Amino acid sequence: MFEKNEPAKGLSAGKNAVMELLKSDNSIDKIFMQRELAKTGIMLKIKAMAKEKGVPVKEVSSEKLDEMCKGINHQGVAAMGAACNFVELDELFSLAAQRQEKPFFILCDDIEDPHNLGAIIRTADAAGAHGVIIPKRHGAGMTEAVMRSSAGAASHVLVSRVSNLASVIDELKRKNVWVYAADMDGQSWCQTDFEGAVCLVIGSEGKGVGRLIKEKCDVVVSLPMCGKINSLNASVAGGILMYEIARQRLGIKSFQK
Amino acid sequence: MFEKNEPAKGLSAGKNAVMELLKSDNSIDKIFMQRELAKTGIMLKIKAMAKEKGVPVKEVSSEKLDEMCKGINHQGVAAMGAACNFVELDELFSLAAQRQEKPFFILCDDIEDPHNLGAIIRTADAAGAHGVIIPKRHGAGMTEAVMRSSAGAASHVLVSRVSNLASVIDELKRKNVWVYAADMDGQSWCQTDFEGAVCLVIGSEGKGVGRLIKEKCDVVVSLPMCGKINSLNASVAGGILMYEIARQRLGIKSFQK
Repeated sequence: MFEKNEPAKGLSAGKNAVMELLKSDNSIDKIFMQRELAKTGIMLKIKAMAKEKGVPVKEVSSEKLDEMCKGINHQGVAAMGAACNFVELDELFSLAAQRQEKPFFILCDDIEDPHNLGAIIRTADAAGAHGVIIPKRHGAGMTEAVMRSSAGAASHVLVSRVSNLASVIDELKRKNVWVYAADMDGQSWCQTDFEGAVCLVIGSEGKGVGRLIKEKCDVVVSLPMCGKINSLNASVAGGILMYEIARQRLGIKSFQK
Repeated sequence: MFEKNEPAKGLSAGKNAVMELLKSDNSIDKIFMQRELAKTGIMLKIKAMAKEKGVPVKEVSSEKLDEMCKGINHQGVAAMGAACNFVELDELFSLAAQRQEKPFFILCDDIEDPHNLGAIIRTADAAGAHGVIIPKRHGAGMTEAVMRSSAGAASHVLVSRVSNLASVIDELKRKNVWVYAADMDGQSWCQTDFEGAVCLVIGSEGKGVGRLIKEKCDVVVSLPMCGKINSLNASVAGGILMYEIARQRLGIKSFQK
Protein backbone atom coordinates (compact mmCIF):
# COMPACT_ATOMS: atom_id res chain seq x y z
CA MET A 1 0.00 0.00 0.00
CA PHE A 2 3.06 2.22 0.17
CA GLU A 3 5.50 4.00 -2.08
CA LYS A 4 7.04 2.22 -4.99
CA ASN A 5 10.13 3.72 -6.49
CA GLU A 6 9.11 4.12 -10.09
CA PRO A 7 11.42 6.40 -12.02
CA ALA A 8 9.91 9.68 -13.05
CA LYS A 9 9.42 9.88 -16.77
CA GLY A 10 10.08 13.57 -17.12
CA LEU A 11 13.26 13.58 -19.21
CA SER A 12 13.19 14.68 -22.85
CA ALA A 13 16.55 14.49 -24.62
CA GLY A 14 17.68 15.80 -27.98
CA LYS A 15 17.25 19.08 -29.83
CA ASN A 16 13.91 18.33 -31.42
CA ALA A 17 12.36 16.79 -28.32
CA VAL A 18 13.34 19.79 -26.24
CA MET A 19 12.09 22.27 -28.85
CA GLU A 20 8.78 20.42 -29.16
CA LEU A 21 8.43 20.42 -25.41
CA LEU A 22 9.13 24.16 -25.31
CA LYS A 23 6.40 24.73 -27.89
CA SER A 24 3.90 22.57 -25.99
CA ASP A 25 1.75 23.51 -23.05
CA ASN A 26 3.66 21.19 -20.74
CA SER A 27 5.58 22.55 -17.79
CA ILE A 28 9.35 22.29 -17.90
CA ASP A 29 11.41 22.29 -14.76
CA LYS A 30 14.83 22.94 -16.20
CA ILE A 31 16.89 22.54 -19.35
CA PHE A 32 20.37 21.00 -19.20
CA MET A 33 22.76 22.04 -21.94
CA GLN A 34 26.22 20.78 -22.76
CA ARG A 35 28.65 23.56 -21.89
CA GLU A 36 30.81 23.41 -25.04
CA LEU A 37 27.78 23.55 -27.34
CA ALA A 38 25.94 26.35 -25.57
CA LYS A 39 26.99 29.02 -28.04
CA THR A 40 25.91 27.22 -31.21
CA GLY A 41 22.95 28.46 -33.24
CA ILE A 42 20.38 25.84 -32.28
CA MET A 43 21.31 26.04 -28.60
CA LEU A 44 20.99 29.82 -28.64
CA LYS A 45 17.53 29.37 -30.15
CA ILE A 46 16.57 26.89 -27.43
CA LYS A 47 17.90 29.32 -24.81
CA ALA A 48 15.76 32.11 -26.27
CA MET A 49 12.65 29.94 -26.26
CA ALA A 50 13.39 28.85 -22.69
CA LYS A 51 13.86 32.43 -21.58
CA GLU A 52 10.50 33.36 -23.06
CA LYS A 53 8.81 30.56 -21.10
CA GLY A 54 10.74 31.35 -17.93
CA VAL A 55 12.50 27.99 -17.90
CA PRO A 56 16.00 28.00 -16.35
CA VAL A 57 18.86 26.65 -18.50
CA LYS A 58 21.80 25.01 -16.75
CA GLU A 59 25.08 24.37 -18.51
CA VAL A 60 26.61 21.04 -17.59
CA SER A 61 29.41 18.75 -18.72
CA SER A 62 28.77 16.17 -21.42
CA GLU A 63 29.46 13.45 -18.82
CA LYS A 64 26.67 14.78 -16.64
CA LEU A 65 24.27 14.78 -19.59
CA ASP A 66 25.33 11.24 -20.56
CA GLU A 67 24.63 10.12 -17.03
CA MET A 68 21.21 11.79 -16.95
CA CYS A 69 20.15 10.46 -20.31
CA LYS A 70 21.34 6.89 -19.76
CA GLY A 71 22.22 6.00 -23.32
CA ILE A 72 19.76 8.24 -25.14
CA ASN A 73 21.42 10.38 -27.81
CA HIS A 74 20.94 13.78 -26.18
CA GLN A 75 22.74 15.90 -28.82
CA GLY A 76 23.87 18.21 -26.03
CA VAL A 77 20.52 19.13 -24.55
CA ALA A 78 17.82 17.64 -22.33
CA ALA A 79 14.78 18.97 -20.55
CA MET A 80 13.42 17.83 -17.25
CA GLY A 81 9.78 18.40 -16.77
CA ALA A 82 6.30 17.16 -17.25
CA ALA A 83 5.91 13.71 -18.71
CA CYS A 84 2.20 13.91 -18.30
CA ASN A 85 -0.03 14.96 -21.13
CA PHE A 86 -2.37 17.71 -20.20
CA VAL A 87 -5.90 17.18 -21.42
CA GLU A 88 -9.01 19.26 -21.87
CA LEU A 89 -11.67 19.09 -19.18
CA ASP A 90 -13.95 17.25 -21.63
CA GLU A 91 -11.61 14.28 -21.60
CA LEU A 92 -12.19 13.82 -17.89
CA PHE A 93 -15.91 13.58 -18.60
CA SER A 94 -15.23 11.18 -21.47
CA LEU A 95 -13.21 8.87 -19.23
CA ALA A 96 -16.04 8.76 -16.69
CA ALA A 97 -18.53 7.99 -19.49
CA GLN A 98 -16.26 5.32 -20.91
CA ARG A 99 -16.05 3.64 -17.49
CA GLN A 100 -19.81 4.06 -17.11
CA GLU A 101 -19.28 5.90 -13.87
CA LYS A 102 -20.46 9.25 -12.58
CA PRO A 103 -17.67 11.84 -12.80
CA PHE A 104 -15.23 11.95 -9.88
CA PHE A 105 -12.74 14.82 -10.21
CA ILE A 106 -10.24 16.46 -7.89
CA LEU A 107 -9.62 20.19 -8.20
CA CYS A 108 -6.44 21.54 -6.59
CA ASP A 109 -6.80 25.15 -5.55
CA ASP A 110 -3.17 26.35 -5.66
CA ILE A 111 -1.41 23.41 -4.02
CA GLU A 112 2.15 24.70 -3.81
CA ASP A 113 4.13 21.81 -2.38
CA PRO A 114 5.11 19.36 -5.14
CA HIS A 115 5.06 16.48 -2.61
CA ASN A 116 1.45 17.27 -1.84
CA LEU A 117 0.42 17.62 -5.48
CA GLY A 118 2.18 14.35 -6.32
CA ALA A 119 0.54 12.54 -3.40
CA ILE A 120 -2.88 13.92 -4.38
CA ILE A 121 -2.48 12.66 -7.96
CA ARG A 122 -1.32 9.28 -6.66
CA THR A 123 -4.30 9.03 -4.31
CA ALA A 124 -6.68 10.17 -7.07
CA ASP A 125 -5.46 7.20 -9.14
CA ALA A 126 -5.88 4.77 -6.26
CA ALA A 127 -9.32 6.07 -5.28
CA GLY A 128 -10.62 5.73 -8.83
CA ALA A 129 -10.98 9.42 -9.71
CA HIS A 130 -11.21 10.29 -13.38
CA GLY A 131 -8.82 13.19 -13.30
CA VAL A 132 -7.23 16.12 -11.52
CA ILE A 133 -7.76 19.77 -12.36
CA ILE A 134 -4.95 22.22 -11.59
CA PRO A 135 -4.60 25.93 -12.28
CA LYS A 136 -2.27 27.13 -15.03
CA ARG A 137 -0.72 30.05 -13.24
CA HIS A 138 -0.62 29.28 -9.54
CA GLY A 139 0.51 26.39 -7.42
CA ALA A 140 3.01 23.70 -8.27
CA GLY A 141 3.39 22.80 -11.96
CA MET A 142 3.82 19.24 -13.13
CA THR A 143 7.50 19.16 -12.30
CA GLU A 144 9.91 16.31 -11.79
CA ALA A 145 9.28 16.48 -8.02
CA VAL A 146 5.53 16.11 -8.56
CA MET A 147 6.10 13.21 -10.93
CA ARG A 148 8.33 11.51 -8.39
CA SER A 149 5.95 12.07 -5.47
CA SER A 150 3.11 10.67 -7.54
CA ALA A 151 5.08 7.40 -7.84
CA GLY A 152 4.37 7.42 -11.57
CA ALA A 153 0.64 8.07 -11.23
CA ALA A 154 1.08 11.43 -12.95
CA SER A 155 1.82 9.57 -16.19
CA HIS A 156 -1.55 7.80 -16.04
CA VAL A 157 -3.95 10.16 -14.32
CA LEU A 158 -5.60 12.71 -16.61
CA VAL A 159 -4.57 16.21 -15.59
CA SER A 160 -6.40 19.24 -16.90
CA ARG A 161 -4.66 22.57 -16.51
CA VAL A 162 -7.12 25.44 -16.58
CA SER A 163 -6.81 29.21 -16.69
CA ASN A 164 -9.63 30.03 -14.34
CA LEU A 165 -10.73 27.74 -11.53
CA ALA A 166 -13.86 29.73 -10.78
CA SER A 167 -15.21 29.45 -14.32
CA VAL A 168 -14.38 25.74 -14.37
CA ILE A 169 -16.49 25.29 -11.25
CA ASP A 170 -19.34 27.09 -13.02
CA GLU A 171 -18.93 24.75 -15.98
CA LEU A 172 -18.88 21.67 -13.73
CA LYS A 173 -22.06 22.81 -12.02
CA ARG A 174 -23.75 23.37 -15.37
CA LYS A 175 -22.86 19.77 -16.18
CA ASN A 176 -24.53 18.60 -12.95
CA VAL A 177 -21.34 17.90 -11.03
CA TRP A 178 -21.62 18.65 -7.32
CA VAL A 179 -18.64 20.61 -6.09
CA TYR A 180 -17.42 19.93 -2.54
CA ALA A 181 -14.83 22.14 -0.82
CA ALA A 182 -12.66 20.48 1.81
CA ASP A 183 -12.46 23.08 4.55
CA MET A 184 -13.32 23.87 8.14
CA ASP A 185 -16.82 24.30 9.55
CA GLY A 186 -18.55 22.20 6.95
CA GLN A 187 -20.67 19.09 7.19
CA SER A 188 -19.27 15.79 8.40
CA TRP A 189 -17.18 14.09 5.72
CA CYS A 190 -18.64 10.64 6.11
CA GLN A 191 -22.26 11.71 6.41
CA THR A 192 -22.18 13.51 3.08
CA ASP A 193 -23.72 11.81 0.06
CA PHE A 194 -20.97 11.54 -2.55
CA GLU A 195 -22.77 9.11 -4.83
CA GLY A 196 -23.55 11.60 -7.59
CA ALA A 197 -21.11 13.34 -9.91
CA VAL A 198 -18.46 14.77 -7.60
CA CYS A 199 -15.67 17.32 -7.78
CA LEU A 200 -13.62 17.58 -4.59
CA VAL A 201 -11.80 20.90 -4.13
CA ILE A 202 -8.61 20.72 -2.07
CA GLY A 203 -7.20 24.03 -0.88
CA SER A 204 -3.67 25.28 -0.63
CA GLU A 205 -1.41 24.45 2.29
CA GLY A 206 -1.41 27.89 3.84
CA LYS A 207 -4.83 29.31 3.15
CA GLY A 208 -7.19 26.41 2.52
CA VAL A 209 -9.74 26.81 -0.24
CA GLY A 210 -9.81 30.42 -1.49
CA ARG A 211 -12.83 32.49 -0.48
CA LEU A 212 -14.19 33.04 -3.98
CA ILE A 213 -13.78 29.40 -4.88
CA LYS A 214 -15.38 28.28 -1.62
CA GLU A 215 -18.41 30.49 -2.24
CA LYS A 216 -18.93 28.80 -5.57
CA CYS A 217 -18.86 25.29 -4.09
CA ASP A 218 -22.14 23.50 -3.38
CA VAL A 219 -21.07 21.95 -0.07
CA VAL A 220 -18.22 22.34 2.41
CA VAL A 221 -17.07 19.06 3.96
CA SER A 222 -14.90 18.82 7.06
CA LEU A 223 -12.97 16.34 9.13
CA PRO A 224 -13.19 16.34 12.93
CA MET A 225 -10.06 17.77 14.54
CA CYS A 226 -9.59 16.05 17.89
CA GLY A 227 -6.18 17.44 18.85
CA LYS A 228 -4.36 20.72 19.34
CA ILE A 229 -3.51 21.35 15.69
CA ASN A 230 -6.47 22.62 13.69
CA SER A 231 -5.52 21.39 10.25
CA LEU A 232 -4.14 18.45 8.31
CA ASN A 233 -1.61 18.21 5.56
CA ALA A 234 -3.43 18.92 2.26
CA SER A 235 -2.66 15.54 0.70
CA VAL A 236 -3.66 13.65 3.86
CA ALA A 237 -6.98 15.52 4.15
CA GLY A 238 -7.56 15.03 0.43
CA GLY A 239 -6.79 11.32 0.76
CA ILE A 240 -9.25 10.79 3.61
CA LEU A 241 -12.02 12.49 1.63
CA MET A 242 -11.20 10.70 -1.63
CA TYR A 243 -11.43 7.35 0.14
CA GLU A 244 -14.78 8.24 1.66
CA ILE A 245 -15.98 9.05 -1.87
CA ALA A 246 -14.47 5.76 -3.10
CA ARG A 247 -16.13 3.81 -0.29
CA GLN A 248 -19.56 5.12 -1.22
CA ARG A 249 -19.00 4.54 -4.93
CA LEU A 250 -17.76 1.01 -4.36
CA GLY A 251 -20.88 0.39 -2.27
CA ILE A 252 -18.85 -0.71 0.77
CA LYS A 253 -20.88 -0.54 3.96
CA SER A 254 -18.72 0.55 6.83
CA PHE A 255 -18.55 -1.03 10.25
CA GLN A 256 -21.22 0.17 12.66
CA LYS A 257 -21.83 -0.97 16.20
CA MET B 1 -8.17 21.79 7.64
CA PHE B 2 -4.82 22.51 6.03
CA GLU B 3 -1.29 23.39 6.98
CA LYS B 4 -0.61 26.18 9.42
CA ASN B 5 2.86 27.61 9.52
CA GLU B 6 3.77 27.19 13.14
CA PRO B 7 7.46 27.67 13.79
CA ALA B 8 9.33 24.54 14.75
CA LYS B 9 10.46 24.69 18.32
CA GLY B 10 13.66 22.76 17.83
CA LEU B 11 16.27 25.39 18.66
CA SER B 12 18.37 25.13 21.82
CA ALA B 13 20.84 27.97 22.31
CA GLY B 14 23.71 28.40 24.76
CA LYS B 15 26.52 26.16 25.99
CA ASN B 16 24.58 24.42 28.74
CA ALA B 17 21.44 23.89 26.71
CA VAL B 18 23.41 22.32 23.90
CA MET B 19 25.44 20.12 26.28
CA GLU B 20 22.28 18.95 28.05
CA LEU B 21 20.69 18.16 24.72
CA LEU B 22 23.75 16.18 23.68
CA LYS B 23 23.53 14.17 26.90
CA SER B 24 19.81 13.50 26.43
CA ASP B 25 18.13 10.90 24.31
CA ASN B 26 16.74 13.53 21.96
CA SER B 27 17.76 13.59 18.33
CA ILE B 28 19.82 16.54 17.16
CA ASP B 29 19.86 17.61 13.55
CA LYS B 30 22.86 19.90 13.59
CA ILE B 31 24.92 22.12 15.84
CA PHE B 32 25.78 25.67 14.79
CA MET B 33 28.95 27.10 16.27
CA GLN B 34 30.37 30.62 16.08
CA ARG B 35 33.48 30.43 13.90
CA GLU B 36 35.79 32.55 16.07
CA LEU B 37 34.98 30.56 19.21
CA ALA B 38 35.25 27.10 17.67
CA LYS B 39 38.71 26.44 19.09
CA THR B 40 37.95 27.30 22.73
CA GLY B 41 37.87 24.60 25.39
CA ILE B 42 34.12 24.32 25.88
CA MET B 43 33.45 24.34 22.14
CA LEU B 44 36.00 21.60 21.57
CA LYS B 45 34.22 19.58 24.25
CA ILE B 46 30.87 20.14 22.55
CA LYS B 47 32.44 19.12 19.23
CA ALA B 48 33.75 15.90 20.75
CA MET B 49 30.34 15.07 22.25
CA ALA B 50 28.68 15.83 18.91
CA LYS B 51 31.13 13.63 17.07
CA GLU B 52 30.38 10.77 19.41
CA LYS B 53 26.66 11.13 18.73
CA GLY B 54 27.17 11.55 14.99
CA VAL B 55 25.77 15.08 15.00
CA PRO B 56 27.25 17.43 12.38
CA VAL B 57 28.73 20.73 13.60
CA LYS B 58 28.62 23.71 11.27
CA GLU B 59 30.73 26.80 11.89
CA VAL B 60 28.86 30.00 11.15
CA SER B 61 29.28 33.75 11.66
CA SER B 62 28.03 35.36 14.85
CA GLU B 63 25.51 37.32 12.74
CA LYS B 64 24.04 34.07 11.43
CA LEU B 65 23.72 32.73 14.98
CA ASP B 66 22.15 35.99 16.17
CA GLU B 67 19.61 35.74 13.38
CA MET B 68 18.78 32.11 14.17
CA CYS B 69 18.44 32.68 17.88
CA LYS B 70 16.38 35.86 17.62
CA GLY B 71 17.54 37.59 20.77
CA ILE B 72 18.41 34.54 22.86
CA ASN B 73 21.92 34.72 24.33
CA HIS B 74 23.50 31.87 22.39
CA GLN B 75 27.05 32.13 23.78
CA GLY B 76 28.34 31.06 20.38
CA VAL B 77 26.49 27.78 20.00
CA ALA B 78 23.03 26.48 19.19
CA ALA B 79 21.56 23.11 18.33
CA MET B 80 18.71 22.41 15.99
CA GLY B 81 16.80 19.28 16.66
CA ALA B 82 14.05 17.65 18.55
CA ALA B 83 11.85 19.89 20.65
CA CYS B 84 9.65 16.97 21.51
CA ASN B 85 10.12 15.10 24.71
CA PHE B 86 10.38 11.40 24.23
CA VAL B 87 8.32 9.43 26.70
CA GLU B 88 8.13 5.85 27.89
CA LEU B 89 5.45 3.63 26.38
CA ASP B 90 3.64 3.63 29.75
CA GLU B 91 2.90 7.31 29.37
CA LEU B 92 0.89 6.62 26.21
CA PHE B 93 -1.26 4.21 28.24
CA SER B 94 -1.53 6.80 31.02
CA LEU B 95 -2.78 9.44 28.60
CA ALA B 96 -5.46 7.08 27.30
CA ALA B 97 -6.51 6.25 30.90
CA GLN B 98 -6.56 9.92 31.82
CA ARG B 99 -8.86 10.67 28.88
CA GLN B 100 -10.95 7.61 29.80
CA GLU B 101 -10.45 6.23 26.31
CA LYS B 102 -9.21 2.92 25.01
CA PRO B 103 -5.60 3.20 23.81
CA PHE B 104 -5.11 4.42 20.23
CA PHE B 105 -1.46 4.32 19.19
CA ILE B 106 0.40 4.63 15.90
CA LEU B 107 3.56 2.60 15.37
CA CYS B 108 5.84 3.70 12.53
CA ASP B 109 7.87 0.84 11.13
CA ASP B 110 10.93 2.67 9.76
CA ILE B 111 9.28 5.65 8.09
CA GLU B 112 12.27 7.31 6.42
CA ASP B 113 10.87 10.46 4.86
CA PRO B 114 10.66 13.26 7.44
CA HIS B 115 7.66 14.78 5.60
CA ASN B 116 5.80 11.53 6.04
CA LEU B 117 6.74 11.13 9.70
CA GLY B 118 5.74 14.74 10.37
CA ALA B 119 2.41 14.33 8.56
CA ILE B 120 1.71 11.09 10.45
CA ILE B 121 2.32 12.79 13.81
CA ARG B 122 0.12 15.70 12.74
CA THR B 123 -2.69 13.36 11.69
CA ALA B 124 -2.29 11.32 14.88
CA ASP B 125 -2.95 14.52 16.84
CA ALA B 126 -5.98 15.42 14.72
CA ALA B 127 -7.46 11.90 14.84
CA GLY B 128 -7.23 11.78 18.63
CA ALA B 129 -4.47 9.17 18.97
CA HIS B 130 -2.65 8.97 22.31
CA GLY B 131 0.83 8.74 20.89
CA VAL B 132 3.23 7.61 18.24
CA ILE B 133 5.84 4.88 18.60
CA ILE B 134 9.00 5.13 16.50
CA PRO B 135 12.12 2.98 16.40
CA LYS B 136 15.37 4.26 17.93
CA ARG B 137 17.75 3.11 15.26
CA HIS B 138 15.94 3.14 11.94
CA GLY B 139 13.78 5.57 10.06
CA ALA B 140 13.65 9.34 10.40
CA GLY B 141 14.54 10.79 13.80
CA MET B 142 12.65 13.71 15.30
CA THR B 143 14.49 16.28 13.25
CA GLU B 144 13.68 19.85 12.39
CA ALA B 145 12.12 18.71 9.11
CA VAL B 146 9.80 16.33 10.98
CA MET B 147 8.87 19.07 13.43
CA ARG B 148 8.09 21.42 10.57
CA SER B 149 6.04 18.87 8.63
CA SER B 150 4.08 18.10 11.77
CA ALA B 151 3.01 21.78 11.87
CA GLY B 152 3.92 21.86 15.54
CA ALA B 153 2.04 18.66 16.45
CA ALA B 154 5.34 16.99 17.34
CA SER B 155 5.58 19.29 20.36
CA HIS B 156 2.24 18.03 21.70
CA VAL B 157 1.91 14.44 20.60
CA LEU B 158 3.57 11.90 22.88
CA VAL B 159 6.34 10.11 21.02
CA SER B 160 7.91 6.95 22.39
CA ARG B 161 11.20 5.89 20.87
CA VAL B 162 11.82 2.19 21.35
CA SER B 163 14.75 -0.13 20.73
CA ASN B 164 12.81 -3.08 19.44
CA LEU B 165 9.51 -2.77 17.62
CA ALA B 166 8.79 -6.49 17.73
CA SER B 167 9.06 -6.70 21.50
CA VAL B 168 6.91 -3.58 21.84
CA ILE B 169 4.21 -5.30 19.80
CA ASP B 170 4.42 -8.28 22.18
CA GLU B 171 4.05 -5.91 25.11
CA LEU B 172 1.07 -4.17 23.51
CA LYS B 173 -0.63 -7.49 22.88
CA ARG B 174 -0.03 -8.55 26.50
CA LYS B 175 -1.81 -5.35 27.49
CA ASN B 176 -4.78 -6.26 25.30
CA VAL B 177 -4.07 -3.82 22.52
CA TRP B 178 -5.02 -5.13 19.07
CA VAL B 179 -2.28 -4.50 16.58
CA TYR B 180 -3.30 -3.74 12.97
CA ALA B 181 -0.79 -3.65 10.12
CA ALA B 182 -1.63 -1.38 7.20
CA ASP B 183 -0.60 -3.44 4.19
CA MET B 184 -1.82 -5.16 1.06
CA ASP B 185 -4.11 -8.21 0.94
CA GLY B 186 -5.74 -7.61 4.28
CA GLN B 187 -9.31 -7.05 5.33
CA SER B 188 -11.29 -4.02 4.23
CA TRP B 189 -10.29 -0.94 6.21
CA CYS B 190 -13.78 0.27 6.93
CA GLN B 191 -15.30 -3.09 7.79
CA THR B 192 -12.77 -3.71 10.53
CA ASP B 193 -13.84 -3.20 14.14
CA PHE B 194 -11.45 -0.62 15.62
CA GLU B 195 -13.46 0.09 18.74
CA GLY B 196 -11.15 -1.71 21.15
CA ALA B 197 -7.61 -0.76 22.14
CA VAL B 198 -5.83 -0.18 18.83
CA CYS B 199 -2.27 0.13 17.60
CA LEU B 200 -2.00 0.91 13.88
CA VAL B 201 1.31 -0.10 12.30
CA ILE B 202 2.36 2.00 9.28
CA GLY B 203 5.15 0.57 7.16
CA SER B 204 8.07 2.23 5.48
CA GLU B 205 7.80 3.93 2.10
CA GLY B 206 9.72 1.36 0.14
CA LYS B 207 8.96 -1.92 1.79
CA GLY B 208 5.67 -1.60 3.64
CA VAL B 209 5.41 -3.23 7.04
CA GLY B 210 8.40 -5.52 7.65
CA ARG B 211 7.73 -9.26 7.44
CA LEU B 212 8.57 -10.04 11.06
CA ILE B 213 6.51 -7.14 12.32
CA LYS B 214 3.59 -8.07 10.07
CA GLU B 215 3.58 -11.65 11.35
CA LYS B 216 3.24 -10.35 14.88
CA CYS B 217 0.24 -8.15 14.06
CA ASP B 218 -3.26 -9.40 14.86
CA VAL B 219 -4.90 -8.13 11.69
CA VAL B 220 -3.81 -6.73 8.32
CA VAL B 221 -6.04 -3.94 7.01
CA SER B 222 -6.03 -2.72 3.42
CA LEU B 223 -7.40 0.02 1.23
CA PRO B 224 -8.86 -0.73 -2.18
CA MET B 225 -6.54 0.29 -5.02
CA CYS B 226 -8.69 1.25 -8.00
CA GLY B 227 -6.00 2.60 -10.31
CA LYS B 228 -2.75 1.62 -11.93
CA ILE B 229 -0.48 2.37 -8.98
CA ASN B 230 -0.63 -0.29 -6.28
CA SER B 231 0.29 1.77 -3.24
CA LEU B 232 -0.32 5.05 -1.49
CA ASN B 233 2.01 7.50 0.16
CA ALA B 234 2.61 6.25 3.74
CA SER B 235 1.20 9.33 5.44
CA VAL B 236 -1.89 9.38 3.21
CA ALA B 237 -2.63 5.68 3.81
CA GLY B 238 -2.00 6.20 7.54
CA GLY B 239 -4.33 9.20 7.54
CA ILE B 240 -7.20 7.33 5.87
CA LEU B 241 -6.91 4.50 8.41
CA MET B 242 -6.55 6.83 11.41
CA TYR B 243 -9.73 8.65 10.39
CA GLU B 244 -11.65 5.39 10.06
CA ILE B 245 -10.51 4.55 13.61
CA ALA B 246 -11.53 8.05 14.72
CA ARG B 247 -14.93 7.73 13.03
CA GLN B 248 -15.70 4.54 14.90
CA ARG B 249 -14.45 5.92 18.22
CA LEU B 250 -16.46 9.11 17.82
CA GLY B 251 -19.52 6.96 17.09
CA ILE B 252 -20.16 8.67 13.76
CA LYS B 253 -22.39 6.59 11.52
CA SER B 254 -21.35 6.95 7.93
CA PHE B 255 -23.59 7.58 4.96
CA GLN B 256 -25.20 4.44 3.53
CA LYS B 257 -27.62 4.21 0.68
